[in-house]
Amino acid sequence: MKNKLATAILFSMCINAAMAQIPQGYNLWLGYSKIEDEKVLKDYRIATGSICFEKAGEMMEAAQLELNRGLECMLDQTPYFTDTIEISTAMVVARRSKLDDALLNALTSDPDHIGKEGFVIETIPYKGREMVVITAGDDSGILYGTYRFLRLMQLHQDLAGLRISDAPKIDLRLLNHWDNLDRSIERGYAGFTLWNWQKLPGYIDQRYIDYARANASIGINGTVLNNVNANALVLTPMYLEKMAALADVFRAYGIKVYLSARFSAPMEIGGLTTADPLNEDVQNWWNTKAEEIYKFIPDFGGFLVKANSEGQPGPQSYGRSHADGANLLAKALQPYNGVVIWRAFVYSAQDSTDRAKQAYNEFVPLDGRFMDNVMVQAKNGPIDFQPREPFHPLFGAMPKTPLMMEFQITQEYLGFSTHLVFLPKLYEEVLRSDTYAMGKGSTVGKVIDGSLFHNKISGMAGVSNIGNDLNWTGHPFAQANWYGFGRLAWDPALSADTIAEEWIRLTYSLDPGFISLIKPMMLTSREAVVNYMTPLGLHHLFDTGHHYGPGPWVNNLSRPEWNPTYYHKADENGIGFDRTPGGSNASSQYAREISTLMNDLETCPEQYLLWFHHLPWDYRLKNGRTLWDGLALHYQKGVDQVRGMLLTWENAKSFISDEQYKEVHMLLKIQLKEARWWRDACLLYFQTFSKMELPDGVDKPAHTLKYYQSLKFPYAPGIRPQWN
Amino acid sequence: MKNKLATAILFSMCINAAMAQIPQGYNLWLGYSKIEDEKVLKDYRIATGSICFEKAGEMMEAAQLELNRGLECMLDQTPYFTDTIEISTAMVVARRSKLDDALLNALTSDPDHIGKEGFVIETIPYKGREMVVITAGDDSGILYGTYRFLRLMQLHQDLAGLRISDAPKIDLRLLNHWDNLDRSIERGYAGFTLWNWQKLPGYIDQRYIDYARANASIGINGTVLNNVNANALVLTPMYLEKMAALADVFRAYGIKVYLSARFSAPMEIGGLTTADPLNEDVQNWWNTKAEEIYKFIPDFGGFLVKANSEGQPGPQSYGRSHADGANLLAKALQPYNGVVIWRAFVYSAQDSTDRAKQAYNEFVPLDGRFMDNVMVQAKNGPIDFQPREPFHPLFGAMPKTPLMMEFQITQEYLGFSTHLVFLPKLYEEVLRSDTYAMGKGSTVGKVIDGSLFHNKISGMAGVSNIGNDLNWTGHPFAQANWYGFGRLAWDPALSADTIAEEWIRLTYSLDPGFISLIKPMMLTSREAVVNYMTPLGLHHLFDTGHHYGPGPWVNNLSRPEWNPTYYHKADENGIGFDRTPGGSNASSQYAREISTLMNDLETCPEQYLLWFHHLPWDYRLKNGRTLWDGLALHYQKGVDQVRGMLLTWENAKSFISDEQYKEVHMLLKIQLKEARWWRDACLLYFQTFSKMELPDGVDKPAHTLKYYQSLKFPYAPGIRPQWN
Repeated sequence: MKNKLATAILFSMCINAAMAQIPQGYNLWLGYSKIEDEKVLKDYRIATGSICFEKAGEMMEAAQLELNRGLECMLDQTPYFTDTIEISTAMVVARRSKLDDALLNALTSDPDHIGKEGFVIETIPYKGREMVVITAGDDSGILYGTYRFLRLMQLHQDLAGLRISDAPKIDLRLLNHWDNLDRSIERGYAGFTLWNWQKLPGYIDQRYIDYARANASIGINGTVLNNVNANALVLTPMYLEKMAALADVFRAYGIKVYLSARFSAPMEIGGLTTADPLNEDVQNWWNTKAEEIYKFIPDFGGFLVKANSEGQPGPQSYGRSHADGANLLAKALQPYNGVVIWRAFVYSAQDSTDRAKQAYNEFVPLDGRFMDNVMVQAKNGPIDFQPREPFHPLFGAMPKTPLMMEFQITQEYLGFSTHLVFLPKLYEEVLRSDTYAMGKGSTVGKVIDGSLFHNKISGMAGVSNIGNDLNWTGHPFAQANWYGFGRLAWDPALSADTIAEEWIRLTYSLDPGFISLIKPMMLTSREAVVNYMTPLGLHHLFDTGHHYGPGPWVNNLSRPEWNPTYYHKADENGIGFDRTPGGSNASSQYAREISTLMNDLETCPEQYLLWFHHLPWDYRLKNGRTLWDGLALHYQKGVDQVRGMLLTWENAKSFISDEQYKEVHMLLKIQLKEARWWRDACLLYFQTFSKMELPDGVDKPAHTLKYYQSLKFPYAPGIRPQWN
Repeated sequence: MKNKLATAILFSMCINAAMAQIPQGYNLWLGYSKIEDEKVLKDYRIATGSICFEKAGEMMEAAQLELNRGLECMLDQTPYFTDTIEISTAMVVARRSKLDDALLNALTSDPDHIGKEGFVIETIPYKGREMVVITAGDDSGILYGTYRFLRLMQLHQDLAGLRISDAPKIDLRLLNHWDNLDRSIERGYAGFTLWNWQKLPGYIDQRYIDYARANASIGINGTVLNNVNANALVLTPMYLEKMAALADVFRAYGIKVYLSARFSAPMEIGGLTTADPLNEDVQNWWNTKAEEIYKFIPDFGGFLVKANSEGQPGPQSYGRSHADGANLLAKALQPYNGVVIWRAFVYSAQDSTDRAKQAYNEFVPLDGRFMDNVMVQAKNGPIDFQPREPFHPLFGAMPKTPLMMEFQITQEYLGFSTHLVFLPKLYEEVLRSDTYAMGKGSTVGKVIDGSLFHNKISGMAGVSNIGNDLNWTGHPFAQANWYGFGRLAWDPALSADTIAEEWIRLTYSLDPGFISLIKPMMLTSREAVVNYMTPLGLHHLFDTGHHYGPGPWVNNLSRPEWNPTYYHKADENGIGFDRTPGGSNASSQYAREISTLMNDLETCPEQYLLWFHHLPWDYRLKNGRTLWDGLALHYQKGVDQVRGMLLTWENAKSFISDEQYKEVHMLLKIQLKEARWWRDACLLYFQTFSKMELPDGVDKPAHTLKYYQSLKFPYAPGIRPQWN
């Protein structure tokens, strides 16, 4: 039987992006460029000309639509779809339960044992011909398998002898949108939220669908729609109706909707006088609310909660613990298999101890006290998404609690959307860090994927860098961070190198000459930003509120730990935060293998030096230079690295379109300007303490310290709105 | 000599929008669809295959780029460009000064007398062949002539015997952007401002160029970049640098940059203690500021000022007049040929008289007291951009002052960007209204284009409906309002009918079957919104602040004239605002021909009935119905008209793509829902006074009055930010 689909989408939906009358970038890594290589084109046309595609539900329909779109664009050939195997059939896409024995027996992998959401792609002999088979245990596996197959084709992979069996290593692969009801995005640098609350639920923007496609293509299976600094209104019917409309779009792409819940919602929208988790009215309110939500969204994922953190309400306001608070919501969601994701990003205004220690101190004693459907979500480091931090000491320290990783994809502290910084390099560093919790090899990645402590559930979240800019992420290379996050959430063991290469080839060019230039540029970009912003373990030198540009001199904020001076502690005697036993002893929160390493100046890696130690300006680094000289040279190196990136880009001009070239060239020039600003401002400020000359090789500052201190950016993007 | 350009843009830049992997709408009316008609295609390919295009400066280069783009897309043929006439040359684009005598003599029109920015397009015999000539006195004429020529081609106009000579009737054709520094847009419903302040000046978004192209194509030659509720920071170097970067982009497209100036800027950013226009320090400050601005932007257009209006600072704070204030700025700009556009939208919190009368009372006595480079900009009606108002009585009443028209393109009071309302119908009604200022035929259009009073300068402004939505305006049909505004600013005598037909053909389809459905729908859409929101002369029934939806019951705002109850004055005795001599006597501000007409119930057009009269509920309309019944039936008719629009769209499905169909279908369904809401809410409320039953034919309300009164929309878009 001829499938309806092929006729329903008669029009080819593809273009060569370079030929479009529109700015590039909208199509992300799903450009499906026409394949020009004659041999590849011919092989692919034969292999995909006639496809038996199982008809079953909206998720498989979405997969089929995408397959059709991708094949039409890449091959300029509309595939012939059937739902039974015909003489001409060259490819089969169907769930394992629908495969006949001849197909099943020919497969190398056992599709019964690939795991949830997993898939098999193989090219097998079948009745005298080659047959491409995509199969899976469930619909989502088919969806992911189809996207993987399209990616292989974009990468010009030879289809002969394909033997792929893959499944996600992590259960919950979520984006966290810090998106507000006024459409601003806290820490958003790519425009405003995609969610057009005013036009929802009646108007479904095509972008919602394309957002879901992009996420499904890299395996993201959930999205928290609103800011963790949450407005209780999202839980009212007026907004639940809008959320439900989005959930209806996302469902076909395997994406569940989650909401950030404001802990005091029972008071704000429920008319109660308390939000005490042990109060029966409060419990009933949440139970009823959960029931209501599931009426709107039958597959609602659950709540993300920021409680007792930076002014947000929480259970501690009633003398209760985080576990009491999380379990209150978990109980309400339990009948519907919803989860509570409780953030560990807490630090108290009343606690004068090292901010880096507080989450550990509050949460470790609660290990084992959370319900089964609660996850604790910790940022990758103990402070706040800095260019470099050691991993968070909670990882490995709560064996009975599934810990969810919170990475930040949006570049709050890494140059907004004008700096090219390839973040998978940062993610990789964290995931490969060894916690030693169960002996050597107990990496953060194994904590997160649940394998170390055999958790029943696992998760990784990325704070989204997506906005309504035409290219979604502001900087075209920031698309690589969204892409890379998704790939690592699927498989935390992937290397940044692999991800960079995939992304470049999918997005820009398959040309080895281009890749050999751009991949090293991407892979060094994160070290560059560390160098020109916060080298040698420095952290949180950012200007107040907006975090745009340097503000190491800021010391007038109401809470001590909001001031950069709190973190670098520079004075005439030296610089750095002593977290050894002689100082805050934060190092003791790590396994002994690590604390020993960090406490000892002989063994402490210099990249964490000033994170763990306060040292005199004339302290000698491993290379024999003074700390002051080393610091200055690191800042200079960062600037030089950006200058190198600019040069690399100029050398790559011939491989890409003029528009593609110009766009990134303008951005790299901004990045270079701002890298110099960071270097000059920080060095001038620290020099007031060190009283030492800049070493040879470091450029003379362009302005005075006073000038840098005078800069004001009242409308820098991404600031938290006043009403939150 | 072969022109460099042709090789520089080797890649075709066109696509069929329906084939793109992107949501439609980005290309506006400049889609340049491939011409499928064989005859037309052949003729056009011959006529434009070889073009002699004069090389001269960036504006003509922009014209040539656009011509190349348009021809490549429509004809799939890259034109051969030269800058001398060759044997093969079929088309010449050059300024009049460069034309040889053979060409000049063959022209019907005299290119020396077409006026500034005007152009001639003719197909003439030349050395034994047909030659298409686009010529003009200045570069901008070439730019506009090129866009006109491309439009003719998009409309499949026969090129044989072309005889077109055209020039704009109005000097200043401006968009007013109410765009803020946090990127929100006051009364913006299509996302957020295009101006990415954070990335300016270093990053030039492709959208800036495409914005300029779209405006140039319809003759818009100026843009006010920031909100009239202005932030003084825009006048600081940090922002002037950003404005200059935009001006650099727009210059090639004939578009000048203007800024909204905050009257108190000398205090806020200048450190003065006063902004008194007669104070010498204040005068010096503005003179110096003007000098500084022109260093950044040598062709800066001038200032737009909202003063002593809705809390904005102004000269009256110092006991000075609007003329004193405007002349202060005019004097500063005069050396550089800049203009001051001073808004007449004023009404005082202290003035208890009819708000509709106040602008007239304040401004008419100042006629003749403004400097030559001052224009006074008045909204089309005396209240505030209502679905229908009589024209503003200032038009015709200030013969010595060039009055600039301010239309609102963004739909603050007309359904935001979810209602399909074709505004040129409203603009046409206003422009064709007769002021009788110099006897019969003294239309508002003639006041505006300067012909009635022989003003030295003329202007028309449109409050932009443009945002960063992918399709620029939110609703695809709202593009027609931007288009139509531009066309009317070029020629205020154009008909809405002509504009609608042009736009449909440029945007959707040349098919007469489609046009015959959609054009009537567009042309009736404005009357529909009047019917379902504010029929029979009612006005300002909108809910507080955001103006989203009905709020006729609102009477608790701090200023009486902010309350809907102030405008409808409904009580048990009747409804309407008495502006006859027995009431506020606002009618006396019009010429006697008009006031006589309006004051007399026998002659007052029913569309203005309740604007000028307070009438009992049982007053008999011309059709014999009671006022109550007539009101109810008008509301019902509005709903029925929207239902008709939805049906029309459904009937037009076969002419357009699925995506195009779905998009507008969703929007029309929202519009129908909201039309019903308006009808039900207003009728239920007015019924509490009339105590009369709804007449037959009027649907029963879906909810209670209390329900409608309970609706709250705290995050409706477009509200003025608190910090303004």
